[in-house]
Amino acid sequence: MSGDIVTIFDTTLRDGEQSPGCSMNTAEKLEIAKALVELGVDVMEAGFPIASPGDFEAVSQIAQQYGDRTTICALARCRKEDIDRAWEAIKHAEKKRIHVFLATSAIHREHKLKMTKEDIIQRAVEMVKRAAGYCQDVEFSPEDAVRTELDFLTEVVERAIEAGATTVNIPDTVGYAVPSQYYNCIRHLKENVRNIEKAVISTHCHDDLGMAVSNSLAAVEAGARQIECTINGIGERAGNAALEEVVMALRTRSEFYKCSTNIDTKRLYPTSHLLTTITGMKVQRNKAIVGRNAFAHESGIHQHGMLQHSETYEIMKPEDVGYRGTSLVLGKHSGRHAFRNRLQELGYELDDSAFQRVFQDFINLADKKKEVYDADIVALIENQLGDTVDPWKMVSFHTSAGSGNIPTATIQLEDAEGKVHCDAATGDGPVDAVFWALERITGIAASLQDYQVRSVSHGKDALGEVDVEIIVGDRSYHGKGVSTDIIEASARAYLKALCRFEQQRLNDKPAVIEAP
Amino acid sequence: MSGDIVTIFDTTLRDGEQSPGCSMNTAEKLEIAKALVELGVDVMEAGFPIASPGDFEAVSQIAQQYGDRTTICALARCRKEDIDRAWEAIKHAEKKRIHVFLATSAIHREHKLKMTKEDIIQRAVEMVKRAAGYCQDVEFSPEDAVRTELDFLTEVVERAIEAGATTVNIPDTVGYAVPSQYYNCIRHLKENVRNIEKAVISTHCHDDLGMAVSNSLAAVEAGARQIECTINGIGERAGNAALEEVVMALRTRSEFYKCSTNIDTKRLYPTSHLLTTITGMKVQRNKAIVGRNAFAHESGIHQHGMLQHSETYEIMKPEDVGYRGTSLVLGKHSGRHAFRNRLQELGYELDDSAFQRVFQDFINLADKKKEVYDADIVALIENQLGDTVDPWKMVSFHTSAGSGNIPTATIQLEDAEGKVHCDAATGDGPVDAVFWALERITGIAASLQDYQVRSVSHGKDALGEVDVEIIVGDRSYHGKGVSTDIIEASARAYLKALCRFEQQRLNDKPAVIEAP
Repeated sequence: MSGDIVTIFDTTLRDGEQSPGCSMNTAEKLEIAKALVELGVDVMEAGFPIASPGDFEAVSQIAQQYGDRTTICALARCRKEDIDRAWEAIKHAEKKRIHVFLATSAIHREHKLKMTKEDIIQRAVEMVKRAAGYCQDVEFSPEDAVRTELDFLTEVVERAIEAGATTVNIPDTVGYAVPSQYYNCIRHLKENVRNIEKAVISTHCHDDLGMAVSNSLAAVEAGARQIECTINGIGERAGNAALEEVVMALRTRSEFYKCSTNIDTKRLYPTSHLLTTITGMKVQRNKAIVGRNAFAHESGIHQHGMLQHSETYEIMKPEDVGYRGTSLVLGKHSGRHAFRNRLQELGYELDDSAFQRVFQDFINLADKKKEVYDADIVALIENQLGDTVDPWKMVSFHTSAGSGNIPTATIQLEDAEGKVHCDAATGDGPVDAVFWALERITGIAASLQDYQVRSVSHGKDALGEVDVEIIVGDRSYHGKGVSTDIIEASARAYLKALCRFEQQRLNDKPAVIEAP
Repeated sequence: MSGDIVTIFDTTLRDGEQSPGCSMNTAEKLEIAKALVELGVDVMEAGFPIASPGDFEAVSQIAQQYGDRTTICALARCRKEDIDRAWEAIKHAEKKRIHVFLATSAIHREHKLKMTKEDIIQRAVEMVKRAAGYCQDVEFSPEDAVRTELDFLTEVVERAIEAGATTVNIPDTVGYAVPSQYYNCIRHLKENVRNIEKAVISTHCHDDLGMAVSNSLAAVEAGARQIECTINGIGERAGNAALEEVVMALRTRSEFYKCSTNIDTKRLYPTSHLLTTITGMKVQRNKAIVGRNAFAHESGIHQHGMLQHSETYEIMKPEDVGYRGTSLVLGKHSGRHAFRNRLQELGYELDDSAFQRVFQDFINLADKKKEVYDADIVALIENQLGDTVDPWKMVSFHTSAGSGNIPTATIQLEDAEGKVHCDAATGDGPVDAVFWALERITGIAASLQDYQVRSVSHGKDALGEVDVEIIVGDRSYHGKGVSTDIIEASARAYLKALCRFEQQRLNDKPAVIEAP
């Protein structure tokens, strides 16, 4: 470990928040800010105060509430009004930074700004000075630095430092850089900007070509000591470098980078999850570090290795990022070792011939079914033991709902002996009413953990697929139902999950009651 | 472009398919295989035939149907049965490859295989020879190559080529590599394996630290000429290098890599979309190249630049990857330029003072609302013109559904003059019935484009939020509804969308009919 500390500059609330689907209101921003402080980010870019009254308000409140624990940064274009407004927003923070930016590449100079190189330098110097008049901690970003002529970039950076910039950020605004080339760019600045030792070099990389994380880390290899990044990699277009990936790469490969961060990595997963909940913008299952599959292994070869020695396939531990545990999802690639292991966890000890039969059933099932859950395995075992009957079958259901009515469901179920049971219940909506009626008849008190609706086909007559996960006791059970009627699909899914619990309960040996 | 062609080896149907949530049945695999052929992949790893009867069947059918257009590859461990089974599956293809692998790193040798270095070489040589006896095109992968001692790796690769391997793949099985280091590894092999010119060097990188794409491309810089990758980057844990990112990086930075591929990039987005539809595994909005935000710009500064000259912020064109077009989503960061531009597209020409008032309303709305749609803007304008009344209000609704019943909805709406209209309709489910009843009363024939249900809170009494997108004519309208009753939320969302259409219709000037 040891080595330099790389400053983690989080811009989830600025670059992240300004991307489609990620806007947050002030209360939501404060919740994220709190999580970022607990995560241990060194600098938090809280917003762009001049953009809107809401932005100003959020930055100002974050500065007041968290400015004693983390440096609060406000963004400003190279304009007086922007800088004054940024200062207004952060002035009450104990630790504060103004971040001014101005595009420097030829394409931006000509098409967007219509300014000459001399204009750019003059404006940058003047505005960095203005910011430095307010605040000792000033960051300057030559926007689109990566596509700027290297000579000109060197000059701009040198003049900005001279004017008072304490951090110089080299943005890859359009996500165009390649690690080896970006490394050379940072190296060039490190070697040619005369006063470079007076400032920290920073990176701000976008992921348009999928290289934001690698570019950021290549810059660290070249001497950069601040990385700008966001939770889940949100941000304009393809987003920014993902904070969790940058941090875990520095940690996992610390013998290579010889750098560390102040991040409490155990807070990574919870923070990612919070952001997803607030914005509704999910990370994909195979997202590095925080995706649902990041620590999941399906392939039999991998599972065999994992069960023997987790380092064969796992370079990080799920606990390190605050995740509950490696989930070995069973599927057709799982192989014998993983399957036997799971059976043991479920409390089944089968002799070799029974194991062989159940394993064959499992392979056949897995060929048809995307994922095999514990309850499926229990069903397979019961199948082999001759107990294939679902404990409850739905005979009929009816729901009634509307304004001025109390949503009501009436359900008939048939039990394994062929006896029909009927009951009704009310609820907050027809689906809720159906769930309560099912629980009444089956006598099982379950709590709903997850409820997902997915359209299987298109159009108004689309088939809806409902996935339900319930918890009874300390175990979870899944059920799935498909119908053009979303209520029927929900009822079938919920009943399936209840049946799976029941099947397992019927199968379990009576517990031995131990003296305390 | 010029330069070398990099072989694109797609393993969506093997490494991708074996990851949790991505399993496919044979029919689904054939659909993906067809899309991959049309996309132009050079080699398609179709599966791991010995893993299950379903895997064998899928590889065999793909080999028969597409083996004349693309090289079909089958995976095998270094075991006779595996290789024989792989050959059985692909033998009818015109172009075919057997891919054998054996782990070589110390941790795998000791903990998983319990084999010495000598054992490994002997087994690899023997099995590569067996594969070469069947087929001229043989790939060998030393699994976990990146964590293998470089001397030993060099020896294994040399012996595998000697035994008949025509492609040598250097997998970063656990996603541990860093671009500069992986570059050095490939470079070392290129310089030290005596017979290296007889084989193509390949990369197979996992994304555990977020660097799979960069590592693959660093290998190309060092002389690799095959990249193994998957659509959407699916695969074990954090997945593989994403095909679309690798391909677009090589294309966008062709002046740097001096290489090209045979991929028809216009098929990238459609192929990604197909995979998502089949597996249900979505890509996140900010995913590079194929995410919904990849070409979307919200920030005002960016939008201003984009409207003047798209290259200021866009290094690729959405059309290049088969995407419909850059979507400028309006939000609070959008700024005046983007807003005025959108108003013009919507057909509004406002004088400066009216524009100023509407823009101020827009900023206030955007502070509260995540995304501002065209219909919201229309509403804002109408607001300023004094027309704030929703053309329809829901007075009451009632639905009845169940087994043996035909789902029926009865709805009362009040129009702008306060007159109440009532009608009923049946449907495939209660939600469908509600939609038909609403259309009957309003007299608007809409087609449902998108219907999303999201739980806003947890538990059985969770609030459901329904988002609806409808198409009337050639424009789309959104509506949102929230309720504990999923049917009520759906009804409100659908009605909102219909109202937005109606508001706009009322506002439109009568069209001028031109002579043909």
